[in-house]
Amino acid sequence: MTPVTAIADLKPSYIREILNLANHVDIISLAGGLPCPETFPTQILEEVMPAIAADKQLLQYAPTVGYAPLISCLHARFQVPETHGIMITTGSQQGIDLCARVFLGHGDKVVTESPSYLGALQVFAIAQATVLSVTQESDGPNLQQLEDLFKAGDVKCFYTVPDFHNPTGCCWSLEKRQAVAALCIRYQVLLIEDAPYRDIRFSGTSLPLVSSFCPEVAICLRSFSKILAPGLRVAALIMPKRWLPLFDKVKQATDLHSASLTQSVALAVLEHSAFEQHLADTVARYSTHYEALANELDVLCRELGSGYQFDPVEGGMFIWLKLPDCDTYQVAKAAIENGVTVVPSAEFYPSSSKPQTALRLNFSHNEPEVIREGISRLKQTLVSTLGYIAR
Amino acid sequence: MTPVTAIADLKPSYIREILNLANHVDIISLAGGLPCPETFPTQILEEVMPAIAADKQLLQYAPTVGYAPLISCLHARFQVPETHGIMITTGSQQGIDLCARVFLGHGDKVVTESPSYLGALQVFAIAQATVLSVTQESDGPNLQQLEDLFKAGDVKCFYTVPDFHNPTGCCWSLEKRQAVAALCIRYQVLLIEDAPYRDIRFSGTSLPLVSSFCPEVAICLRSFSKILAPGLRVAALIMPKRWLPLFDKVKQATDLHSASLTQSVALAVLEHSAFEQHLADTVARYSTHYEALANELDVLCRELGSGYQFDPVEGGMFIWLKLPDCDTYQVAKAAIENGVTVVPSAEFYPSSSKPQTALRLNFSHNEPEVIREGISRLKQTLVSTLGYIAR
Repeated sequence: MTPVTAIADLKPSYIREILNLANHVDIISLAGGLPCPETFPTQILEEVMPAIAADKQLLQYAPTVGYAPLISCLHARFQVPETHGIMITTGSQQGIDLCARVFLGHGDKVVTESPSYLGALQVFAIAQATVLSVTQESDGPNLQQLEDLFKAGDVKCFYTVPDFHNPTGCCWSLEKRQAVAALCIRYQVLLIEDAPYRDIRFSGTSLPLVSSFCPEVAICLRSFSKILAPGLRVAALIMPKRWLPLFDKVKQATDLHSASLTQSVALAVLEHSAFEQHLADTVARYSTHYEALANELDVLCRELGSGYQFDPVEGGMFIWLKLPDCDTYQVAKAAIENGVTVVPSAEFYPSSSKPQTALRLNFSHNEPEVIREGISRLKQTLVSTLGYIAR
Repeated sequence: MTPVTAIADLKPSYIREILNLANHVDIISLAGGLPCPETFPTQILEEVMPAIAADKQLLQYAPTVGYAPLISCLHARFQVPETHGIMITTGSQQGIDLCARVFLGHGDKVVTESPSYLGALQVFAIAQATVLSVTQESDGPNLQQLEDLFKAGDVKCFYTVPDFHNPTGCCWSLEKRQAVAALCIRYQVLLIEDAPYRDIRFSGTSLPLVSSFCPEVAICLRSFSKILAPGLRVAALIMPKRWLPLFDKVKQATDLHSASLTQSVALAVLEHSAFEQHLADTVARYSTHYEALANELDVLCRELGSGYQFDPVEGGMFIWLKLPDCDTYQVAKAAIENGVTVVPSAEFYPSSSKPQTALRLNFSHNEPEVIREGISRLKQTLVSTLGYIAR
């Protein structure tokens, strides 16, 4: 009764393991990608719930593709072209998994940025796909490397988070968006554009989705976990209509359909007159959280020396703090002992890559004063494990 | 951008396709396995929803294994031994899929009854497992065939629905339950016991779960879709604790976790003082529905001749109506034109098997008067397509 090798060998997520620790009262978590509970639209929810509770239709089996009124709402909200359709998924995580199950067979090649979202790397490992990496620069992937990979042939997908990348927080330039789209069209590579943080922008200008430049070879994943509530597990896949029947077959076998109740809740919140203001408030709150973290890190980097560095971000949930050469797992472990959790950079790289020495720090979950205390603990940890460098 | 072959080749579910038709006002569906909407616990729901809507914790990311208070409740409800643990899944369909993802690699052997649940066959097709069949008799699988398959070696799993089998409605005898469990232990084959209909028993005596005789090599799937509401998508996997970390890793990659809101709703309904009475009412209602269908079929079989036959059932949702030799797809198609949907038997067999000539008829969804009209339409269809036989 031995499990499949790909499963037995799969590392459990450091972040999911650490989430358990994060619930201990004395530990400050800068590790997870949790929204701040204060941003959950509880007032709107209490208003819309009675009508939802009375709707018997939500309790019956439902179409695999999703709750029709929610799909209609999202068609308008995301201005989905007529050539394209929507499937509702149990969070974007399921969306990534469905993409892999439809398109990635054993040994098929998928390109990811290096570093990349851990949950996507887990999916590709289970699919037993071959993961190839392209270096991430401050404005997007290295185009020459990407084209070389595509040119070598047989690349089926390019998975990416172009807006407020997880873990680095970086955003692609307009030029790179257009260039990558052109490469995907030219080499007929499926672009899987994961956009969970796109709506959390507190400065700068929003650029078009990469998939908008190559819609016929792209699937875009839109999540409501960051702007509404992750516990609802509601996200949407937007894709050319011709692929919907394939996704339908796989999702049928996967879970028949996502819960109708939570889809209906998501719809009611999205359509509520107070939602846009709620979203603006959420973004404003995260801007404040970000300022608190960035200010503390400015001081930390100045004090601890030139090996410490981070790039400012214009949205999302994370800052990527580069460290002097060290064992980041050891730093993360020492940090837990000091009462703060962070994610070591190696977690975000496929096992074949050499990771940049860094930590991913979250600013969405905690209030500014908690963030400040967390960074104070992290600073102590860094001083005691790595010492002052080049002061 | 070609999809994985196993997906491209997968037949979409006839039943899911037919569900769309079933929504047309003029068509009576005896095809799906839908609960009767009158059995949804709407009164209990309206009572418990306000407290659930106000619980912010349900909106946050949550542990992959499931909502802890629901897991505790189910440990007690199902008297799960200390050696075993529970994972909450998005319906039992996801439970089957997770079992396959953990244990069934490409080409691995899984045994199913012939006929078997279509959704399981779809999962095994996507896993590219080798499906072997054991003939189903009126009291369970043919034991000699089963042992021969196990003895030939390398069988990893045996997937089965021992209580009110889908599609045939049959229940295993105590002797076969014990014998199959002994075989699974002897040959170290994982028993996947799917028990969604177990609580819908309106006559006869409930027998122990097969997995209770071989708990160390078994996973039991308990669904709340038939006794509570399928739209919630809440089910539980019960398994030896040592396997939980494997399932946790796969479910992490699959969807992070199932929606907390619906898990909390399921818990609140299960713990409500009115639930056991509600369940008894549901079973009583289905007994009435069953009597209506069985009575009509008695008349039909008497009138149409000896080629028509069905075994009475003591619960579940289906009757398996055997027909004289014919093309059951053609009958099902003619039935739709006559305003009633049924499922042709071939849908429930792996493509390598020769199907018994039969139709699966559902009695849970419709009120007795609708069932009677449905069978009247089916009778017309049978007369016009097959004619009277051996009258």
